[in-house]
Amino acid sequence: MKRSNWLGAMALSLGVSALAMTFTDHSQAQGLPEFTLQDVSSDVQMPWGMAWLPDGDMLVTDRNGELYRLSDGQAGSPIAGLPEIHVNGQGGLLDIVLHPEYETNGWLYISYSDPEGDGEGSNTSIMRAKLDGNRLSNQEVIYRAEINSTRGQHYGGRMIFNDGYLFFTIGDRGDHFTNVQDLSRDGGKTYRINDDGSIPQDNPFINVPNAKPAIWSYGHRNQQGIAINPLTGQIWTSEHGPRGGDEINIPEAGKNYGWPYVGYGINYNGEVLAEATHGAGMEQPIWYWDPSIATAGIEFVSSDRYPELKNHLLVGGLRGSKLELLEISDDRVIRSTDLITDSGRIRAIRQGPDGYIYLGIEGEGIKRLIPAN
Amino acid sequence: MKRSNWLGAMALSLGVSALAMTFTDHSQAQGLPEFTLQDVSSDVQMPWGMAWLPDGDMLVTDRNGELYRLSDGQAGSPIAGLPEIHVNGQGGLLDIVLHPEYETNGWLYISYSDPEGDGEGSNTSIMRAKLDGNRLSNQEVIYRAEINSTRGQHYGGRMIFNDGYLFFTIGDRGDHFTNVQDLSRDGGKTYRINDDGSIPQDNPFINVPNAKPAIWSYGHRNQQGIAINPLTGQIWTSEHGPRGGDEINIPEAGKNYGWPYVGYGINYNGEVLAEATHGAGMEQPIWYWDPSIATAGIEFVSSDRYPELKNHLLVGGLRGSKLELLEISDDRVIRSTDLITDSGRIRAIRQGPDGYIYLGIEGEGIKRLIPAN
Repeated sequence: MKRSNWLGAMALSLGVSALAMTFTDHSQAQGLPEFTLQDVSSDVQMPWGMAWLPDGDMLVTDRNGELYRLSDGQAGSPIAGLPEIHVNGQGGLLDIVLHPEYETNGWLYISYSDPEGDGEGSNTSIMRAKLDGNRLSNQEVIYRAEINSTRGQHYGGRMIFNDGYLFFTIGDRGDHFTNVQDLSRDGGKTYRINDDGSIPQDNPFINVPNAKPAIWSYGHRNQQGIAINPLTGQIWTSEHGPRGGDEINIPEAGKNYGWPYVGYGINYNGEVLAEATHGAGMEQPIWYWDPSIATAGIEFVSSDRYPELKNHLLVGGLRGSKLELLEISDDRVIRSTDLITDSGRIRAIRQGPDGYIYLGIEGEGIKRLIPAN
Repeated sequence: MKRSNWLGAMALSLGVSALAMTFTDHSQAQGLPEFTLQDVSSDVQMPWGMAWLPDGDMLVTDRNGELYRLSDGQAGSPIAGLPEIHVNGQGGLLDIVLHPEYETNGWLYISYSDPEGDGEGSNTSIMRAKLDGNRLSNQEVIYRAEINSTRGQHYGGRMIFNDGYLFFTIGDRGDHFTNVQDLSRDGGKTYRINDDGSIPQDNPFINVPNAKPAIWSYGHRNQQGIAINPLTGQIWTSEHGPRGGDEINIPEAGKNYGWPYVGYGINYNGEVLAEATHGAGMEQPIWYWDPSIATAGIEFVSSDRYPELKNHLLVGGLRGSKLELLEISDDRVIRSTDLITDSGRIRAIRQGPDGYIYLGIEGEGIKRLIPAN
């Protein structure tokens, strides 16, 4: 038993507040200081996505179907003009990103579970719009996944701009054998589109008959984290896997990441889905977790506020209730550390314009990561 | 706090034997069964190296300066004919390997701290010899590191045959700034020689004036584990680092692994040696530990006895007192797991000809890894 756990057991038996447990014991380690979480706002209870306006205000999505602007941590009334949203299981209002040239063109992008289109239920859509006071205007749906499903699982929905393109994820919608390996169907994919929804002419499947031309990579279960490696410019994703199969991947153009045929876990109902961990033509993950921590948001640290974390990857756990640090070298994980434990369910992680790392935590709100001293 | 630790705390508070603690709780994980250690022999108290004769008997070195033959776990009297050995700190009789064609040529190889040669104290030598009854014969020193030192640290000494060559390691002998980056000096290196001690003509530094021609790679602190990746044929080593800097590396011909200028730890006396973690022309590790576990023996599993472990790397910890599993894909670690905890100080790990994994544990003897059920 590690010393940190003894300390934990002692603290509890002495009735010490659980607050003290949010620190991980790094006293034997040399490279990392201790960190803690500082409250920023408790006004948004189910934060899923975060973005910063030029004036420093935060836009925060609430999965329950609302969008808020936070000034100094205080939420005003919900922003009007959202599309109809099918709040259903893991669906709802999901991510938000600003256009890299937001200051000149004013475009913001939201992802959400959209009841429009064919079939009962909903599927993931991407809308762009502008913020006009406390209301969205110029709304355009620039991607609508087909077909709808009444299932509540695996909308994906994480977005990021990279190299001028909008990348986003859509999960398998619980229909892994139908959707994921079929390029003519949405779901279980990473996508790349232009900022207006048009398709880049060098997308990998643009010349494949019947393939959805927006697809960038496939064979994914439910990617709920996406971030850009500041040293390579590549996108990295977290994939919320089956029990014992959460993954980190670097989705590359046209590649197959194997789900549901290749993976490291079993379904939550005990069904063995991916019997093999390796398959011809299928990529291995960069990292995986067994037991699963239920990965969601991820972020690379690029600011100078955390010298020891710079260029490394932060991963949030929902069920794992922790913030994990994966130290990266040449696209390899060279060490894994629990940076914060007992954090609550971390859904979103983003580095703000002030260089601090902000966390969206279910049922708690927004917090930021600071050195403990 | 993880469930496994709660169980541990409960077990202790109930007075349950510490024996039950040698199992790691994998009940939430899907891929791995539980493992335990089975006693093989307690006749050799400081086992450092293990090799198997064609009849199944084990040759086991005792760091205290003796070599034993174990039949069914029973040691006979020490084998005679060893060279003079300077038992000093980490020095003593170290590793033993058999020639790949032992059955026809009878050569075995030992590494040890040798008081012969220039200077007080000792340095690491490699001897080959034949086993004639219970006595060595035909002894030839085929490599002698220069110059001797009275320091007790970092003899290295791990050996393995690969592709017909004998690879071995010599540590920095505690003189990191003098020895390690200087190719004209021994210490802090991996070496490659022919089976008779002659130098392969394609060794990387063979044409570098004054360089020791046996050097394969440099910039190492103290490599005490070496194994061959069964999928790639490359050698992998563990490097016992400073506090917070144990590493796994893949030593490649002519490359510099950075010690003492680049690394992840500080010296045990608190001195900061490697101020940078990256350096131009210096390789990054495949994996590192902070806090250190004090790595020693490593082994890749290639037998069919452990389907879940096959082609993955086992790493023993001395201070860490555990057997760790690093799951490997394409020369990357994709997951790290404690397979056995509270194992005692694991010095040596080798897969036997029966496909079982054998561990040499200080103060306890030889054990083997078996599924718990």
